[in-house]
Amino acid sequence: MKDKFYQYIQDLQDSITSKLEEIDGKAKFQQDIWKRPEGGGGRTRVIENGSVFEKGGVNISGVHGKLPKSMQAYFNVGDVDFFACGLSLVLHPKNPMVPTVHANWRYFEMYDEDGKIIDQWYGGGQDLTPYYLFEEDAKHFHQTCKTACDKHNSEFYSNYKKRCDEYFYNAHRNEGRGVGGLFFDYCKASADMSMEHWYNFVTEVGDSFLDAYVPIVEMRKDLQYTQANRDWQEIRRGRYVEFNLVHDKGTLFGLKTNGRIESILMSLPPHVQWVYDHHPEAGSVEEKLIEVLKNPKDWV
Amino acid sequence: MKDKFYQYIQDLQDSITSKLEEIDGKAKFQQDIWKRPEGGGGRTRVIENGSVFEKGGVNISGVHGKLPKSMQAYFNVGDVDFFACGLSLVLHPKNPMVPTVHANWRYFEMYDEDGKIIDQWYGGGQDLTPYYLFEEDAKHFHQTCKTACDKHNSEFYSNYKKRCDEYFYNAHRNEGRGVGGLFFDYCKASADMSMEHWYNFVTEVGDSFLDAYVPIVEMRKDLQYTQANRDWQEIRRGRYVEFNLVHDKGTLFGLKTNGRIESILMSLPPHVQWVYDHHPEAGSVEEKLIEVLKNPKDWV
Repeated sequence: MKDKFYQYIQDLQDSITSKLEEIDGKAKFQQDIWKRPEGGGGRTRVIENGSVFEKGGVNISGVHGKLPKSMQAYFNVGDVDFFACGLSLVLHPKNPMVPTVHANWRYFEMYDEDGKIIDQWYGGGQDLTPYYLFEEDAKHFHQTCKTACDKHNSEFYSNYKKRCDEYFYNAHRNEGRGVGGLFFDYCKASADMSMEHWYNFVTEVGDSFLDAYVPIVEMRKDLQYTQANRDWQEIRRGRYVEFNLVHDKGTLFGLKTNGRIESILMSLPPHVQWVYDHHPEAGSVEEKLIEVLKNPKDWV
Repeated sequence: MKDKFYQYIQDLQDSITSKLEEIDGKAKFQQDIWKRPEGGGGRTRVIENGSVFEKGGVNISGVHGKLPKSMQAYFNVGDVDFFACGLSLVLHPKNPMVPTVHANWRYFEMYDEDGKIIDQWYGGGQDLTPYYLFEEDAKHFHQTCKTACDKHNSEFYSNYKKRCDEYFYNAHRNEGRGVGGLFFDYCKASADMSMEHWYNFVTEVGDSFLDAYVPIVEMRKDLQYTQANRDWQEIRRGRYVEFNLVHDKGTLFGLKTNGRIESILMSLPPHVQWVYDHHPEAGSVEEKLIEVLKNPKDWV
């Protein structure tokens, strides 16, 4: 299972990065292969200063060894071995009319002293963070998520859409990070779903990523924008930073367990602003975005 | 004691903001008075887009009521009443040759059911974050801190200088936030130091702030700089954001206990960059700064 999924995310990284380079037309992903001293490593691919993508990363990693102490407490287990692999991506487009996107698909195993699997699960999701809200973009993204989910279970989409809205929430701002998508975790074998079924579901979502995001990029990347639009994008990117550094479990875990810092923090936007007590004008499209972020909508 | 200290920080806010406005010559502090629903409130003063100060805040607050649940656990006490007041300031100058500065002086009381004080202490400090290191600036700042400390106890400077280096440390980057200064906390009455003595010490440090910082601003504010200097400043400001959002106890406490968000996050810089895996050129002045941040020096 772990070899099959690791092969899958390697191939997915290739197909996603080559498609994004094709769209960008100017910048190429820079690749860094890194090793984790305690076991495993990763392949980080970052794009910067493109004509479409101002900054982004599409990273895979596969790490193993003794489960770090902090994770033992978190998972409420003893001194066990583990394996974890996944693909994480974040794309920050230059044009404020193109939304930022984040996706992650991951697999986790823990072993007893004889190397037998004692626990295993999938997790992941994908979510959209617009700076200017085109409702049809949010609908397209969510519809693509729903179509992938519905092939496996008619309740997955509504459950995982709700969990996404709950997870990507800036509690200190009382607003969502974006317009959501899917979030699932601890997907374990049950009477209904074997690990094989979960593999099929997670890879179905992974395969849907380009279908969900690329048409939005194509539609918006050449729209005109002003310096005011750009300032708004940079202010909103500040909220993205706040979520990732204050609330995101994956980021904090990485920072506190000696992960590869540059691979983790590739998620942070290239240019960001903080303006004291900033509020968009009443009735503006910027204010409309905030309203939707405060009151998550059903998009399909 | 609490009324005397609250009066002190009100007066100090006035003297600091008027001096800073005089130096800036262009921008004025914008004042926001706010109330805390559970008791107390504050007076936030923020300056933006000045000729010297790109963004900064000099805020006071005095809050009281039932100690929030999360703080009960933190202080290991039950359901008690509290009073806390303090002045917090952060200044982000426009010119990369002028360092960012942070300072905070605070006082805390907790009461039993009869309103009797069961615990009380002072805390605070001041620290400097240069983007380009002028050693004489770091020496001047530290010498001013030492002079204030030495009037009260010959060991205070070396103790609180060390605690400052330890506290303002970006563990995930293995480097200090800046070149330090002073950090002290839980300054409680003892055989050597009454609360009155602590009041005299803390206000001595507070009174030293303008002497520590203003000469540095005057020396550096008109130095020429390039876009490359400015980019470096914005990248280093990213580390400032990382410290404040990931590690700073005060910020996280505020965010998680329903503090006034805009007053807390005034500390975040106005324009910030994150560049993937950025390293200054070997032998550059930028690299020299990093070396000092990784290996804190004795400045006096």
